[in-house]
Amino acid sequence: MSKLEKYFPAMTWLKGYSRADLQIDAVASFIATILLIPQSMGYALLVGLPAVVGLYASIIPSIAYSLFGTSRTLAVGPVAITSMMTATVALPFALPSNENYAAIAIMLAFLSGIFLLLMSLLKMGFLANLLSHPVISGFISASALLIVIGQVKHLLGIDAQGNNFIELTQSMLQNIGNANKPTLLLSIIAITCLVLLKRYLTPALITLGLPAALAKTLGRAGPVLVVGGTTLCMATFSLDTMGIKIVGDVSNHLPSIPFERFTLDTMIELLPGAFLISIVGFVGSVSVAQSFAAKRKEDIKPNQELVGLGLANLGAAFSGSFPVTGGFSRSVVNVSAGAQTPMTGIITALLMLVTLLFLTPIFYYLPTAVLAASITVSILQLIDVKDLIRLYRFSKQEALALVATFLVVLFVGMEAGIITGVALSLLFFLWHTSHPHIAVVGRLPGTEHFRNVKRYEVETDPQIATIRIDENLFFANARVLEDYILSLVAQHQDIKHLILMCTAINMIDASALDSLETIDDRLKSAGIMLHLSEIKGPVMDKLTDSTLINQLSGQVFLTQHQAINALTIKPEQV
Amino acid sequence: MSKLEKYFPAMTWLKGYSRADLQIDAVASFIATILLIPQSMGYALLVGLPAVVGLYASIIPSIAYSLFGTSRTLAVGPVAITSMMTATVALPFALPSNENYAAIAIMLAFLSGIFLLLMSLLKMGFLANLLSHPVISGFISASALLIVIGQVKHLLGIDAQGNNFIELTQSMLQNIGNANKPTLLLSIIAITCLVLLKRYLTPALITLGLPAALAKTLGRAGPVLVVGGTTLCMATFSLDTMGIKIVGDVSNHLPSIPFERFTLDTMIELLPGAFLISIVGFVGSVSVAQSFAAKRKEDIKPNQELVGLGLANLGAAFSGSFPVTGGFSRSVVNVSAGAQTPMTGIITALLMLVTLLFLTPIFYYLPTAVLAASITVSILQLIDVKDLIRLYRFSKQEALALVATFLVVLFVGMEAGIITGVALSLLFFLWHTSHPHIAVVGRLPGTEHFRNVKRYEVETDPQIATIRIDENLFFANARVLEDYILSLVAQHQDIKHLILMCTAINMIDASALDSLETIDDRLKSAGIMLHLSEIKGPVMDKLTDSTLINQLSGQVFLTQHQAINALTIKPEQV
Repeated sequence: MSKLEKYFPAMTWLKGYSRADLQIDAVASFIATILLIPQSMGYALLVGLPAVVGLYASIIPSIAYSLFGTSRTLAVGPVAITSMMTATVALPFALPSNENYAAIAIMLAFLSGIFLLLMSLLKMGFLANLLSHPVISGFISASALLIVIGQVKHLLGIDAQGNNFIELTQSMLQNIGNANKPTLLLSIIAITCLVLLKRYLTPALITLGLPAALAKTLGRAGPVLVVGGTTLCMATFSLDTMGIKIVGDVSNHLPSIPFERFTLDTMIELLPGAFLISIVGFVGSVSVAQSFAAKRKEDIKPNQELVGLGLANLGAAFSGSFPVTGGFSRSVVNVSAGAQTPMTGIITALLMLVTLLFLTPIFYYLPTAVLAASITVSILQLIDVKDLIRLYRFSKQEALALVATFLVVLFVGMEAGIITGVALSLLFFLWHTSHPHIAVVGRLPGTEHFRNVKRYEVETDPQIATIRIDENLFFANARVLEDYILSLVAQHQDIKHLILMCTAINMIDASALDSLETIDDRLKSAGIMLHLSEIKGPVMDKLTDSTLINQLSGQVFLTQHQAINALTIKPEQV
Repeated sequence: MSKLEKYFPAMTWLKGYSRADLQIDAVASFIATILLIPQSMGYALLVGLPAVVGLYASIIPSIAYSLFGTSRTLAVGPVAITSMMTATVALPFALPSNENYAAIAIMLAFLSGIFLLLMSLLKMGFLANLLSHPVISGFISASALLIVIGQVKHLLGIDAQGNNFIELTQSMLQNIGNANKPTLLLSIIAITCLVLLKRYLTPALITLGLPAALAKTLGRAGPVLVVGGTTLCMATFSLDTMGIKIVGDVSNHLPSIPFERFTLDTMIELLPGAFLISIVGFVGSVSVAQSFAAKRKEDIKPNQELVGLGLANLGAAFSGSFPVTGGFSRSVVNVSAGAQTPMTGIITALLMLVTLLFLTPIFYYLPTAVLAASITVSILQLIDVKDLIRLYRFSKQEALALVATFLVVLFVGMEAGIITGVALSLLFFLWHTSHPHIAVVGRLPGTEHFRNVKRYEVETDPQIATIRIDENLFFANARVLEDYILSLVAQHQDIKHLILMCTAINMIDASALDSLETIDDRLKSAGIMLHLSEIKGPVMDKLTDSTLINQLSGQVFLTQHQAINALTIKPEQV
């Protein structure tokens, strides 16, 4: 791979790009654009911005990612989780009705972009790994619940604001008396249609004789049909006069960025929120990208993904919109429409631009309640109770981390929830590694294999004890081995040689080295020699010059078998 | 071991205790008491309390630990680090001149005792393991420097207060003009004598024909000689009239506890400090206890140590003193005086009580500058630059954690320093485990051994790839394996079977299980089967009922050898 391809991944597919490829990608883009328009507008409403901003967020970010990302099929744009996070972070700074609100969303996109690029530069992508399965699962379920709760105001045609579950619910209950009945009726009809279409459209199309692949793609058009149908009804019968809110006049010019509303102070206050948005967005996006890449045996480079997503977010900021990332449902639309290369992302973006410039009048009568209904239906499935049950069976501690994250996100806030979850995950991991499995091992008769004396019938020598610790040796468990060994030799006064079998040790840090030296010293003063066997290459490389190896009372053996032979056969020499 | 012995470890030595034992212990206790009196008074001054409080802290705590601790030789009482920590935590609440100051020290001892007992009850002793080698080393060096700086005011006979290095130094520089010249001269003489006696007393006694062991014990009497000599001079020539501060009237009655000054609010504010004091004290104490126990092939039970130290601290609180713990220099005194059993601790405590009740007048003329000199000389050796150099050679990251802890403790404060150090240690550990060593392995020709293809000449099959990851699989590195495997199969299109060799995997958490399922799914959709080999017993126990094993595209093999045989010889069956 050339250097150019490394920093500009689009080269890998651009250099062999043919007219035939373009035709396939163009058709896929056309289908994708139609399906993505209502989705993008819906997420803009979710943030609390005008629907048209969702289109802004789908143009430059998509092009930036197509050129600099490494996935061939990932579609980048507004996504449910990051949109919700943007709303949560922005709300304490300004209400959506305030003109500063849009500026705050833009600043968040800008800062997320900077964070992603910085993480790429510092190779800090591994930080994303801190978001363990329980944390992500709890966070997504809580966020989905918050999103759904947040949509209820649109479904009822009322006003409600709040940073967490309690505030939102309270505000909603206060305003529920003002619910607009026609809006409520429309919402119920829309949700019913969406659920039915989602379940039965594809089978129906197949029954009608369409090829399965095409039926699957068209089967996703439920939201488009509902949005189209209701918009048509609204326009035909002027239902907006009954109090149903509609999208209304959508400006057909390009966005302007309110630079005069940006302040350094606000930016600094937005940093933690922007960091979380970028890291959660990154984790989600990379896992979606990988799931598609694996099917096609393609390769995703996480560090380059940081660049692609970082530039996409800077693009989002400079198109006056809000944070974006790679989304599962966006990408599914792309793939099932037959997208071959990232060119789809570029063409889709251009079609969005055309829509923005010339076709916005057709959205005039689109009811916001219908957009909310479509978000609600697609988001509800993210609340994953089965995962909690499965996790609980696997590990009670991890299930606790999930529940804690869920509850804190719901009742306190997003940042607090993620911090709680990560802290618990770390604590439980440390608890686990600081209670390592340690076994006294002996030789399986007639073999060179050594096994746990408690699980197998093995040969041992009362003067030689062999211990195997099934864990890395580092600060969290260094003293545990110390306790174990010193306790063992205190109980078995015959021991003259202690062999530490290092098969399962992948790393030794300074604290553990310290501990091993202490063990050696203390054994020495009790007249016992400490030997090491089966040390792995990378671990031995680090130990070579250490005081431990230089001052070790015993020897370092390549294999446990050699150790036992040397110590048993000629004990007088050792 | 009976249940009684488990909860009341003194039973193990009490039941065989003879008159001969008592004689040996009594002699050792007599020597230890003489050596410990100036030390204990010095640490009380270090806290900022009257010297006599150091005697209070040496009575009940010592008896409590002797009865409930598991070490036969550990001496519990006032210790440098915890005394310094007590001063640091207490100072923001009251000046030592204020009557509340003593109450705060007592509350800290009380809370430390509660924390230690709670940790024992909840088996949370492992939390102490978070204090990695770099954190402890940086913390001790910084504390030692702070202690020494704090003693300078006594050496110069001036006043100075401050929570950190800068505040202390500033306050000292402001007051340096008031330095008392006779005090300064006395300090210089005392330090010189202490250093010379420390170095030459033992050799001199040996030259004089004393047995080496006795010479060593008496060689520790330097501080006693200096303290005794200067006190005598002060008394004979009434030097206190020259402005040299003396200990003065020491009450010879038992302590009273100012219950009326305890408030719940203050207790709550003291919690973090008390927690740190107890955990740092515990770590120090256990390692001292173990170093002595190993020499005598005795057994230390960390959980019971928590009980012993917890009760010792409650004892310290109820004798109106300050937090205590097991100390290295206290214990050395005990051991070299010939202590056989914890009875020494009990007799020493009783001798301290006699001293407190009847002998305090002999301390009237003791100059505080001389106590400060003796602390300074013994503490200076704790500043360990060599350790930093050694650590830097072993691991740059850990050296950075040490330096960060040192600087933050020095310039910001104790809690911030420890939190910084622990956070950095965790981050570096996670960075390390999230960059695990992953190797493609092949068979050493003619053997059943499998080795890294990059290090050995091994046999491989283009259709079968075997991967060994040398790390636990958990959230911090789960996605790394995913990236590695998906990238590998994207580059080698011939692969039909992928074997994950699990020799080095000691734990798999839910995030990693998730990742393995994803890998399996993605390989499946690329037409590749995933197999597992050499899974360890405890890991397999957890996996047995998981969806991973139930839905795995390939098989689980006991050994890698079996896996290769099954997949190579009869590929049509698999």
